[in-house]
Amino acid sequence: MELLKKRILADGEIRPGNILKVDSFLNQRMDIALFNEMGKEFKKRFADEGVTVILTVEASGIGVACIAAQYFDCPVVFAKKYTAKNLDSEVYSAKVHSYTKDIDYTIRVTKKYIKPEDKVLIIDDFLATGEATNGMIDIVKQAGATLAGVGIVIEKGFQNGGKELREQGVHLESLAIVKSMSDDSIEFA
Amino acid sequence: MELLKKRILADGEIRPGNILKVDSFLNQRMDIALFNEMGKEFKKRFADEGVTVILTVEASGIGVACIAAQYFDCPVVFAKKYTAKNLDSEVYSAKVHSYTKDIDYTIRVTKKYIKPEDKVLIIDDFLATGEATNGMIDIVKQAGATLAGVGIVIEKGFQNGGKELREQGVHLESLAIVKSMSDDSIEFA
Repeated sequence: MELLKKRILADGEIRPGNILKVDSFLNQRMDIALFNEMGKEFKKRFADEGVTVILTVEASGIGVACIAAQYFDCPVVFAKKYTAKNLDSEVYSAKVHSYTKDIDYTIRVTKKYIKPEDKVLIIDDFLATGEATNGMIDIVKQAGATLAGVGIVIEKGFQNGGKELREQGVHLESLAIVKSMSDDSIEFA
Repeated sequence: MELLKKRILADGEIRPGNILKVDSFLNQRMDIALFNEMGKEFKKRFADEGVTVILTVEASGIGVACIAAQYFDCPVVFAKKYTAKNLDSEVYSAKVHSYTKDIDYTIRVTKKYIKPEDKVLIIDDFLATGEATNGMIDIVKQAGATLAGVGIVIEKGFQNGGKELREQGVHLESLAIVKSMSDDSIEFA
């Protein structure tokens, strides 16, 4: 998606540890006009999948997922990373490692929000090693639902998450795939 | 907002400790069609405030804020509750107590995302004691920006947060105000 690649080149910042910082339009300040263009693009790429629900994980996937859901005319469910007093006990859960924060955490989705008849589109902001995505796919399987596909805003193509998902036959669509990053340049696939 | 009140009566669950659980359409499963109606309503109520940015806090405020932002034609900034390796060091921060989770936490917003010339509309899903809202108002003040108002989906009118904000002259608009809750009934103000 050219508009997104241009924006990454204009406003993305490269930090030590293969971190691509896109806080100014994606992760903390959210450019809703851009999100709408991304939502339309996801709809185009997953038009034939019969999506009935979008699944994402808190926090930075939620904005993109909600805007995209308008084009699929479906609700969004987000997996929780942190426990709350009032979380239902009837949950699907999966263990996920965060390389950015260097911690293990458990993502949880209340069982009744994903039904066996659902066709689930997973949407997230980043795909690198695929930890969070695989955790969500695991939850879709636990629910006995169908995985319609995985829509990612930025895939780090130099890490293995995307490759592994494609080898498993997952319908993966990434709006921008970063092939390589150095201190002062970004190359797309 | 009648549509929202009806939905709360139909799908809200009351749990011990004054917890109103609206996970099925607001907090974990997000009904985007309803969010659009709420977004239009917020626009109507804050039409004259010249809003330039919407501020919310992760995670469950993000969806409503993003959908509402489409009607204000402005970006959304969300305050982070959890530290990440790659968070900017130049942040505004405020301490907040969560009664639901019974912990203190610090919310943070990268300084450059709220400018002194901004007119900031704070949007959040719940207002009870006002802890999170007051933390965000503090951040707006630190930035030297103008508080355009506070838009809340559900205010617990039997707690003091809303009353205190109105007494301070804050333009507060809550789409539903719960006056009282018992084990099996909800009364709106």
